[in-house]
Amino acid sequence: MPLEIPEVVIDRLPVYYRLLSRLQADGTAVVSSQELGLALGVTPAQIRKDLSYFGRFGKQGRGYSVQRLTEELRSLLGLKRRWKVVLVGVGRLGRAIASYRGFEPQGFDIVGTYDVNPEAVGSGADDIEVRSVADLQRDLTVGPVDIGIVAVPGTEAQAVIDVLVCAGVTAILNYAPIAAQVPANVEVRQIDPVLALQGMTYHLNRRAGQP
Amino acid sequence: MPLEIPEVVIDRLPVYYRLLSRLQADGTAVVSSQELGLALGVTPAQIRKDLSYFGRFGKQGRGYSVQRLTEELRSLLGLKRRWKVVLVGVGRLGRAIASYRGFEPQGFDIVGTYDVNPEAVGSGADDIEVRSVADLQRDLTVGPVDIGIVAVPGTEAQAVIDVLVCAGVTAILNYAPIAAQVPANVEVRQIDPVLALQGMTYHLNRRAGQP
Repeated sequence: MPLEIPEVVIDRLPVYYRLLSRLQADGTAVVSSQELGLALGVTPAQIRKDLSYFGRFGKQGRGYSVQRLTEELRSLLGLKRRWKVVLVGVGRLGRAIASYRGFEPQGFDIVGTYDVNPEAVGSGADDIEVRSVADLQRDLTVGPVDIGIVAVPGTEAQAVIDVLVCAGVTAILNYAPIAAQVPANVEVRQIDPVLALQGMTYHLNRRAGQP
Repeated sequence: MPLEIPEVVIDRLPVYYRLLSRLQADGTAVVSSQELGLALGVTPAQIRKDLSYFGRFGKQGRGYSVQRLTEELRSLLGLKRRWKVVLVGVGRLGRAIASYRGFEPQGFDIVGTYDVNPEAVGSGADDIEVRSVADLQRDLTVGPVDIGIVAVPGTEAQAVIDVLVCAGVTAILNYAPIAAQVPANVEVRQIDPVLALQGMTYHLNRRAGQP
């Protein structure tokens, strides 16, 4: 396997994995790059190129084995094990995240929930036990976790991220509207609806400007 | 301006715009690709290459004019005008989106809120007027909008997206965990925490496998 796979390719692999899991559940045995491309709105050439980074799964003219490709992606993406997650921030957004039912079936367990606002701490609303961020560092020393989800306001986000990184967390899912500063060995993904909207208005604007 | 700019470059422009807006607000007049790269965690070469798609903003050895580059990005991204948005889905996540204060300052106005669940409709919780999805098509005929935000469960998402597309909405921000099927002239951005997490576990898994 080559050592350096482009980040944009890695970010597409979960999308492939999701589609393939569904095909496998439906009992589909073989799928072509044309079919995958059609379902995902990308070209078959793109599919073939992306998957070629990980070896030769398909046979010319015969398509991909759904089972083999799904298993390989599961393994590559680290989805054969469970991952421990802490959530920091239990405002509206944090509560929506805490109650999201999509994490657990995919192997992500929220093992702790924290907030910087003492009023929210220990409130026990929605059956969530909320601890103070002041306890976060100590808690993570006793029970390390893999991933931190940050759903605090932008003004507090970098401080929370610093605590997580300092406690050895090397993957941060950041919902706060800031460009997080982290060491090179820490992965960050930003979930930011405004950035997503602005990527679309570029296209809307161009179209509006054309006759 | 070249006609085809890679989509990954377009998706980075809002990030550049955000940082430059902040620099401008702080009174910074000139910024180098090194400084931009450092702040965003990418190489200066990447910054220069991305911005080169849109013309020559920088002068060799003198850096970029913050004001000029900010204005150009504002124009390119279509942020000199306001955009009308409808939100469909007012569960926990939808309510968090409806009350998010980051949209309005960036030019995005949520002009209507809808839900498929009649029990939620018209409940008026959080001072949001919620209308039935059954009224969506008619409402959009009377008052067209630019963008639809979809925050309904996965099982209902494609039907909602079909209604939006049919009513002429050409940009969809999709929070539902499905690969939306839309015509080629419709832009879709997916906000999906599980996909983001799985992009990171790829890296965590690889590191764990290395001695």
